[in-house]
Amino acid sequence: MKARVTVTLKNGVLDPQGKAIEGGLAALGFAGVGHVRQGKVFDIELSGRSAEQARADLAEMCEKLLANTVIENYAIEIV
Amino acid sequence: MKARVTVTLKNGVLDPQGKAIEGGLAALGFAGVGHVRQGKVFDIELSGRSAEQARADLAEMCEKLLANTVIENYAIEIV
Repeated sequence: MKARVTVTLKNGVLDPQGKAIEGGLAALGFAGVGHVRQGKVFDIELSGRSAEQARADLAEMCEKLLANTVIENYAIEIV
Repeated sequence: MKARVTVTLKNGVLDPQGKAIEGGLAALGFAGVGHVRQGKVFDIELSGRSAEQARADLAEMCEKLLANTVIENYAIEIV
């Protein structure tokens, strides 16, 4: 089974990388571009689990390793 | 309008960061975890465009700045 975990910064957390991309897009001449926020995505292959169990394990992986839950949100999607 | 651009490494391109995460998850005791691939996600606010035009502009942004199309694929989603 394949899963996709998306980790994004929480609202209100500064995102200098996103700001730099905003500046880059403006410099390239793209008008009407508002805020840009950058996040991470993890494509993970899992075996020997039900979808239910996979979801629980992925949440634990996020809490322990994939996301910094002080400043980041995560979303789990079984593909 | 909001859009999400997901940039992932093409198949066959080495992903040392993904490998490190695989090792980390194994070290934390998660069994049955196969390949892990890491990518990037960009949440972009756009204004003054139709969905069609936004999609075209986002593709151009990916080609010019957001993705290295030699080694990366990108997917555009209007939210």
